[in-house]
Amino acid sequence: MNALQTLLGMPLPIVQAPMAGVQGHALAAAVCQAGGLGSLPGAMLSPEALRSELAALTAATDRPYNVNFFCHTPPVPDTARQAAWLDALAPCYAALGLSRDGVAAGPGRVPFNAEALQVLQAFRPPVVSFHFGLPDAALLAPIKAWGGRVLASATTLDEALWLADHGADAVIAQGLEAGGHRGHFLDPDLSRQMGTLALLPQLVQALAGRGPGGLDVPVIAAGGIADAGGVAAAKALGAAGVQVGTAYLLCPEATTSVVHRAALQSEAARHTTLTHLFTGRPARGIVNRFMHELGALNPAAPAFPLATAAVAPLRARAEAQGSGDYSPLWAGQNTRGCRAVPAGEITRALAAGW
Amino acid sequence: MNALQTLLGMPLPIVQAPMAGVQGHALAAAVCQAGGLGSLPGAMLSPEALRSELAALTAATDRPYNVNFFCHTPPVPDTARQAAWLDALAPCYAALGLSRDGVAAGPGRVPFNAEALQVLQAFRPPVVSFHFGLPDAALLAPIKAWGGRVLASATTLDEALWLADHGADAVIAQGLEAGGHRGHFLDPDLSRQMGTLALLPQLVQALAGRGPGGLDVPVIAAGGIADAGGVAAAKALGAAGVQVGTAYLLCPEATTSVVHRAALQSEAARHTTLTHLFTGRPARGIVNRFMHELGALNPAAPAFPLATAAVAPLRARAEAQGSGDYSPLWAGQNTRGCRAVPAGEITRALAAGW
Repeated sequence: MNALQTLLGMPLPIVQAPMAGVQGHALAAAVCQAGGLGSLPGAMLSPEALRSELAALTAATDRPYNVNFFCHTPPVPDTARQAAWLDALAPCYAALGLSRDGVAAGPGRVPFNAEALQVLQAFRPPVVSFHFGLPDAALLAPIKAWGGRVLASATTLDEALWLADHGADAVIAQGLEAGGHRGHFLDPDLSRQMGTLALLPQLVQALAGRGPGGLDVPVIAAGGIADAGGVAAAKALGAAGVQVGTAYLLCPEATTSVVHRAALQSEAARHTTLTHLFTGRPARGIVNRFMHELGALNPAAPAFPLATAAVAPLRARAEAQGSGDYSPLWAGQNTRGCRAVPAGEITRALAAGW
Repeated sequence: MNALQTLLGMPLPIVQAPMAGVQGHALAAAVCQAGGLGSLPGAMLSPEALRSELAALTAATDRPYNVNFFCHTPPVPDTARQAAWLDALAPCYAALGLSRDGVAAGPGRVPFNAEALQVLQAFRPPVVSFHFGLPDAALLAPIKAWGGRVLASATTLDEALWLADHGADAVIAQGLEAGGHRGHFLDPDLSRQMGTLALLPQLVQALAGRGPGGLDVPVIAAGGIADAGGVAAAKALGAAGVQVGTAYLLCPEATTSVVHRAALQSEAARHTTLTHLFTGRPARGIVNRFMHELGALNPAAPAFPLATAAVAPLRARAEAQGSGDYSPLWAGQNTRGCRAVPAGEITRALAAGW
């Protein structure tokens, strides 16, 4: 066991990436049982749902697990911008025979807060990971107090240094290949972000000796890792472990939708791009009709997570017709690791590359 | 020696990336002498200069070497577009006290053609590599006839398959991390391109068994590889060798300009992006004032290579003042391998990771 495995208490250096919307406790438990670190995505869960999922997860496994949260600053709703967004979506609504009346303006995703912390305190999860930076020190301290280890994603060298200096016990180097939301929080300029092969060794070098007592802050590689070869590559670049998401999307334990599964297994999966149409923040997904129609990075999209509400009816109607044209088909740039086999099998196959 | 080393006749599986404008025969010869495959960039050389460089290279080493060419289709000059480009550059000209009168409209770079082939025929280079696809069969056949091996860059799976089917003996998987010009030739949509960690294993899988006699077409990894760890990672992902450019830019044998060397050793090197301001085609370089002023991908830039001529006076004036504000500071996303040591030392350090 290397320093990361000891830190997080997992026999295999494989972290299953938390993927809000496509998995719950079942996937996380299966990965934990196989010896990896399963992750429960908390970003879209109410406190009640979070409690229920944690209860199910801890009933299914007694191994260490991770719970993930977003920690963005909620935007002030902007009526004019919301109206402009609905205007931009008007042709899509018309094409699907939907009315724009009554579109909810709800937030969709709330950042980690005192309520979520209160739920966590009953379970004391051994690992808590964050996306979009870290929460306030007051929210972080209780996690540390129960011995929870804190992970967070960095997309640049500056973010990695910031995270190490603000309480992250290990840093996830999120290369541009990764599926789902980009984790940046210091600079929205996407051109600052880089591929895993370039980012990872730079973070490993920068975080050497930067931890408590002059120890290295372990770096977890994420983005483009789909199989044992990818894991071996990450190890060669100095990673202390890997985080893999996309490869788990076809597992029976995932809740990936039918249209999403179909897209992942089609030629369409060869073309992903960063889009903020679904939430307001850039995230990597398979290119679909919605992106073609509006442009993947349309300036009309409101701030995260306010873009979400108005897309929901389009998505629901299209999916009811068996179409993923308006669905967020999150995927990384390397879908060749996706297999419709139990998550434990994926986990063990990945670990064989270490 | 693996199949690629045997094919190209080099003891070490390290290809020095051809870098037009920042190197000539000296760098190539040094890499060859160290056991790698040195490359002479032919894209910006007149037939006379090409002959002279080849003579110098072959005098300096008797090891196998590579000569590289572009094979774009030259655009039809567009007077209106050129005028619009000059208008876009007007503030830059004014700021530097330059007149726009008399800006040459020359092409800057010509594709591989019969004249270049004629020069090559006198030398019969053992390896010829191409960027932006492959030349016509009539230009390729003579190279094959003298036993020359042909390499070409792919940025997508489709391009790799096309190259393997049109005469490439090995394919360079050019990940998005790479410095200099993107090699795409089938689809200009940059979102189709991916990081090395995702691209490389997909090409290795797709080209398995696709060569003559059902042999694998070897894949050379490029983009983000800066040191022994990067080389080991590429090997783990199935590469038959690596192509490295950026790490050689500070070598004494390179002709990298003073401003370029300074930028590579500064904090500025941490931020590269794709720009077509310098030539009309997207290429990765360190972000500088010119990109900030015009936007790195400004729609006014004429087709490759016609953007070049109007930028030349800006670059010359700024460089005369010790500034790289208007220079193409080509670099990949990982400049931590850049060291001001002889190219042989870089080559051997890279090969230690194999």
